[in-house]
Amino acid sequence: MARVGLIGATGLVGSEMLRLLAEREFPIDELRLYASDRSIGKRIAFADGEIACQGLTPDGFDGLDLVIVDVDDPIALEWAPIAAAAGARVIDNSAAFRMEHDVPVVIAEVNPGDLAEMRRGIVACPNCTTMVMLTALAPLHAEAEITRLVVSSYQSVSGAGQAGIAELDEQWITGAGKSDQYRHAGVTPAAMTPGVVWNKPIAGNVIPLAGSLQDHGYTSEEWKLVNETRKILHVPDLQVTATCVRVPVFVGHALSINVAFARPLGRDRSVELLADAPGVELIGDGDGYPTPMDAAGIDPVLVGRVREDLSMPGALNLWVTGDNLRKGAALNAVQLAEYLA
Amino acid sequence: MARVGLIGATGLVGSEMLRLLAEREFPIDELRLYASDRSIGKRIAFADGEIACQGLTPDGFDGLDLVIVDVDDPIALEWAPIAAAAGARVIDNSAAFRMEHDVPVVIAEVNPGDLAEMRRGIVACPNCTTMVMLTALAPLHAEAEITRLVVSSYQSVSGAGQAGIAELDEQWITGAGKSDQYRHAGVTPAAMTPGVVWNKPIAGNVIPLAGSLQDHGYTSEEWKLVNETRKILHVPDLQVTATCVRVPVFVGHALSINVAFARPLGRDRSVELLADAPGVELIGDGDGYPTPMDAAGIDPVLVGRVREDLSMPGALNLWVTGDNLRKGAALNAVQLAEYLA
Repeated sequence: MARVGLIGATGLVGSEMLRLLAEREFPIDELRLYASDRSIGKRIAFADGEIACQGLTPDGFDGLDLVIVDVDDPIALEWAPIAAAAGARVIDNSAAFRMEHDVPVVIAEVNPGDLAEMRRGIVACPNCTTMVMLTALAPLHAEAEITRLVVSSYQSVSGAGQAGIAELDEQWITGAGKSDQYRHAGVTPAAMTPGVVWNKPIAGNVIPLAGSLQDHGYTSEEWKLVNETRKILHVPDLQVTATCVRVPVFVGHALSINVAFARPLGRDRSVELLADAPGVELIGDGDGYPTPMDAAGIDPVLVGRVREDLSMPGALNLWVTGDNLRKGAALNAVQLAEYLA
Repeated sequence: MARVGLIGATGLVGSEMLRLLAEREFPIDELRLYASDRSIGKRIAFADGEIACQGLTPDGFDGLDLVIVDVDDPIALEWAPIAAAAGARVIDNSAAFRMEHDVPVVIAEVNPGDLAEMRRGIVACPNCTTMVMLTALAPLHAEAEITRLVVSSYQSVSGAGQAGIAELDEQWITGAGKSDQYRHAGVTPAAMTPGVVWNKPIAGNVIPLAGSLQDHGYTSEEWKLVNETRKILHVPDLQVTATCVRVPVFVGHALSINVAFARPLGRDRSVELLADAPGVELIGDGDGYPTPMDAAGIDPVLVGRVREDLSMPGALNLWVTGDNLRKGAALNAVQLAEYLA
């Protein structure tokens, strides 16, 4: 039985985390929920009862075995080390520590052995897009060694939290039935004004910019996919190039992936490997076309459209989709907690 | 002054065609509109007047200089040769003749010289996705010779005609305000039943299957992108691999494109070439992120997110979006008509 803390209990991923801890009957002796000042005292349902949220204080982690963190980077950066110093093992869903040399980044089905490297008492979960992608690719990499990935993403608005969901929801309602305005617009339709999270409409549109612009014209989301993939697969110079795109889907990220291997891997063998892969559900023997809506609310990452890349012998194209809040975030954190407990 | 016929005058692209012929003041002496039986006699506005649709009859093309065809493949297959035999030059938007050795496939800004090869009196326009992509890529190919393309598409529902627009429209209306049902579903939300055009919901979803499944697990849309690109660029063995995905956008196709060249082409030179390219509008000096909604209703193809592919020296990533009904179909046909007139 473990004493567990959850920092960020009222967020989208935090709620999913509580649902999963209960569903999976995680052996909890005590559960403390931490929230921002405005939510202190808020009572949150868990299992058969309710737990009141508390604020973050330096001595608030005493006696805890595990602390799961799902808050923005600056808050994680401040409080994860305090929780670790208090003796808890910390599982962090933020990006604050992922690139630290003494903090492993772990996907439960891919590199659980790296949990032995928690030299600061902290383990990081990767970004939701990386998580969905590598859960599917890891068994192929183990067999044939990936040498290059060309990735285009289709990322849902919940990747931007509750504000992202609210923005699509509102634009969807105001835009309903106004397809004529979208069709010959050439300008933002009158029904649809740019929002707060995105400065272009997201309903009825796709936005090829996820995260903020960084070096060489790539965004933070694109760099995460590159750097986290290299770290998790232990290939520091792995060739990865990505274009991350936001789509008007509430939950579920998807990726169109082109993979080259050191040792050619045919479609038949790939399909065999994916059919047996933990955390993966292969759809239609690899010919299926799973959608984000199929993946929302379930644990496995769905894989389909597995095709030999006829333009490059031995390479593959495939399509992967997974629930970005669940396997992409909350589920992996709970799985790591199960390993550590 | 030309005598012009339009087969498929009542369709989405047909309507766009009439709008463009008027806007561009195409020198028309006589305009005959052909439609299916149920639309015979229907009066359609054009310029300052109205024209009644007529049915298709073998002697109905007598005296025409140009016939533009925008109907399903079987109807085009039957009637385009009849119009050509009657002495008209035929511009066909269907896929019926694109792969015929004696029918050129032409994009006005890319390979207008191929109009000289109309040995059957027929020229084909490429698929809308190919059109949008190659309008942007042609100037890069001319400079540095493309050797491989890895493409993922984001295609709007209007690519499936009025039925596609109606399906998204209806699902959007019934789904409005029901985001909660989409979030933890794991099954099709109650608000949303699969449609007629797509057997999975398209509103609030993306569907990684555009067209019908063909050889090697690729769809008709994916094969069109491969084969038409090779034919238009005159590189029969060009390496092209594609994943075509339908997104809940009304009008405007987009593509995430990874391009390798025979001669390395840096970002600076690419941006110079794209800034001067006909039919192309480079957004934010190549750093912009144009959306399909920005491209809907205007002529140029918009290009942004131009980045060096750090995983492969000399290669590029870029994002291209264009109005699939306009440059993707109607505009190109009208541009070819202008060449031929």
